[in-house]
Amino acid sequence: MHEIPLILLGIGGVGRALIRQIIANRTLYAEQYGLKLGVLAICDRTGAVLGLGGGIDDQALLDLIDLKEAGGALTEHALGGDDYGDMSTIVSLAGRPGAVMVDVTATDATIPALLAARERGYKIALANKKPLTDTQEVYNRLTQAGATGGVAHFQQSVRWEATVGAGLPVIATQNRLVASGDKIKRMAGAFSGTLGYVMTGLQAGRRLSEIVREAHQLGYTEPDPRDDLGGMDVARKALILARGLGWEVELSDVDVTGLYPPNLDDLNVDEFLDALPELDKAMDATIRDAAARDGVLRYAATVENGRCFVGPTVVSADSPLGRLTGTDNLAEFHSHWYSPNPLVLQGRGAGVDATAAGVLSDVIELAFTRE
Amino acid sequence: MHEIPLILLGIGGVGRALIRQIIANRTLYAEQYGLKLGVLAICDRTGAVLGLGGGIDDQALLDLIDLKEAGGALTEHALGGDDYGDMSTIVSLAGRPGAVMVDVTATDATIPALLAARERGYKIALANKKPLTDTQEVYNRLTQAGATGGVAHFQQSVRWEATVGAGLPVIATQNRLVASGDKIKRMAGAFSGTLGYVMTGLQAGRRLSEIVREAHQLGYTEPDPRDDLGGMDVARKALILARGLGWEVELSDVDVTGLYPPNLDDLNVDEFLDALPELDKAMDATIRDAAARDGVLRYAATVENGRCFVGPTVVSADSPLGRLTGTDNLAEFHSHWYSPNPLVLQGRGAGVDATAAGVLSDVIELAFTRE
Repeated sequence: MHEIPLILLGIGGVGRALIRQIIANRTLYAEQYGLKLGVLAICDRTGAVLGLGGGIDDQALLDLIDLKEAGGALTEHALGGDDYGDMSTIVSLAGRPGAVMVDVTATDATIPALLAARERGYKIALANKKPLTDTQEVYNRLTQAGATGGVAHFQQSVRWEATVGAGLPVIATQNRLVASGDKIKRMAGAFSGTLGYVMTGLQAGRRLSEIVREAHQLGYTEPDPRDDLGGMDVARKALILARGLGWEVELSDVDVTGLYPPNLDDLNVDEFLDALPELDKAMDATIRDAAARDGVLRYAATVENGRCFVGPTVVSADSPLGRLTGTDNLAEFHSHWYSPNPLVLQGRGAGVDATAAGVLSDVIELAFTRE
Repeated sequence: MHEIPLILLGIGGVGRALIRQIIANRTLYAEQYGLKLGVLAICDRTGAVLGLGGGIDDQALLDLIDLKEAGGALTEHALGGDDYGDMSTIVSLAGRPGAVMVDVTATDATIPALLAARERGYKIALANKKPLTDTQEVYNRLTQAGATGGVAHFQQSVRWEATVGAGLPVIATQNRLVASGDKIKRMAGAFSGTLGYVMTGLQAGRRLSEIVREAHQLGYTEPDPRDDLGGMDVARKALILARGLGWEVELSDVDVTGLYPPNLDDLNVDEFLDALPELDKAMDATIRDAAARDGVLRYAATVENGRCFVGPTVVSADSPLGRLTGTDNLAEFHSHWYSPNPLVLQGRGAGVDATAAGVLSDVIELAFTRE
């Protein structure tokens, strides 16, 4: 039995789903993979819990899930604790050969801990986009080691499938195409279920203001719907795809167009929803204009010719992106071997369970990877 | 620099494409992956060529490609040689830690060599479906070692992406879903470009006999079109997918329905093409019947509830398979997390270059895998 010690950063929705899946899959991993996943430490902004020996036992893990769901803080139960910014105690105490640090937070405060982990030779699995969309210098330190090799070599020890499309194997597909020497000329995709829902409604002739208000009420959007409609989350995904091709690009280089103009940024959420109808007419004209060109409007990320574009995009109604409706994510890879038809991936691209499943696949692959 | 010694079985179209891609990607592998792929030996039914030291050099590899394209035999150039059935000399001479045996033939004569390689701890990358669709016992010996673990553990050392959908990451996706603990309830797919072409023609109202004759004349089918229309190649792919889920199934358990009745098996190719019009009326009725049920007819492989079905299948016109037209392959994964909408993969599923690219991605992944 090969033991994989995990250091878990974050115990929000994805972290809790991940712990539940680890516990549910213990027999599978033991019998089919010869693996035991041990949770050595869990840290979040409220503190940290360290396990000794084989890690935190399953009952204690389930208790921690209950604690967090009741709004508790980890410090209450901590053997040691710290914020993400100064994780040296955790990193050194949890240190074991083959340790994997798993970041399922949504903060850039984990970056120092991740860099410290890399320096100690730990592997890393990320659902958190922030460390990969920080400066190119941070990205390079996380994913490559300057002295010994290129980007691709170190992608073997650092994985981030769940940052784009949750459990959909978008990054695995990209890495396989790159590894085969295929030339990826263009990636285009829909990477927001919320924006997919909005675009499908618009195509059906509904008003933007009405769709957004409904989606907000149903809880399909972030508490502030501008966090979806502004496109920054999709921009981070586009940047991760671009950097995965070896491009040196910063987040500020991504050309992002939101579904609302910047002057609505100063309003509160209710004022914003009330102001949305003033955008309906222009949006309707844009949709009609696309249709007149035999196209449809999608909120797409496009990575091509050294540039990343994120925003409403007219695509052929007959293309994979053009045929997409609803909240599924979709990625098109246009490459030397996949031409004229792209390689296409489609499916659920969000949700804590699908995201945790993507992280868990990465952890299992890392367990069989040599540095 | 980490050297990966390759033992190549087969130097047909895929083998030659693979050699060309290895040579073309030397800089990529050195700079980005820290890898050097050395071809230590090439064997086919005409003989074998062994390289000494770092392997066969690039000029010699290109000369061998020319030799084979001119119809030459490897024995003329062999340092040692044998048929696939008795490969002990090759396997022992080529023996190096971390060696990868690559099977790009289409014969079951390579099985003894593959088993000998596994016993010596070599890794294996297969584009050849025959070894994986032989008896369950052969499959188990190739992909797992009884003493130490289950199927999944040894999938780390034996890869076969190119056996289903060429370079499309169908197997990688399946392995990731299995590794995440997701429950795959149904896989359904179109895994023959030729049959996709036929079904698209039928849907457009053309006659079966006319489509097949045209496809045969254009070289879209095998020299004997019954090798496509009979469905056995698709049946092998369905079996590989089913066994990848841990099922114990034999090829004879796959329920295969071809596009022609068995009584046409005794004819020669010209007689077969002449006899096809007698099937047109019934096929046309089947297409109309599907349409009357709001469905479309696809030549599909379905893996579900312990059973594999391969044949003309009525699917919803609104499903991913139902929307598929042309020669692209498509795979739907219906699972616990991917429900009600499946995870879908689509793209080119054939061709020597795309197949070689799939093999090459496997080889690079194997280079970073520990046993």
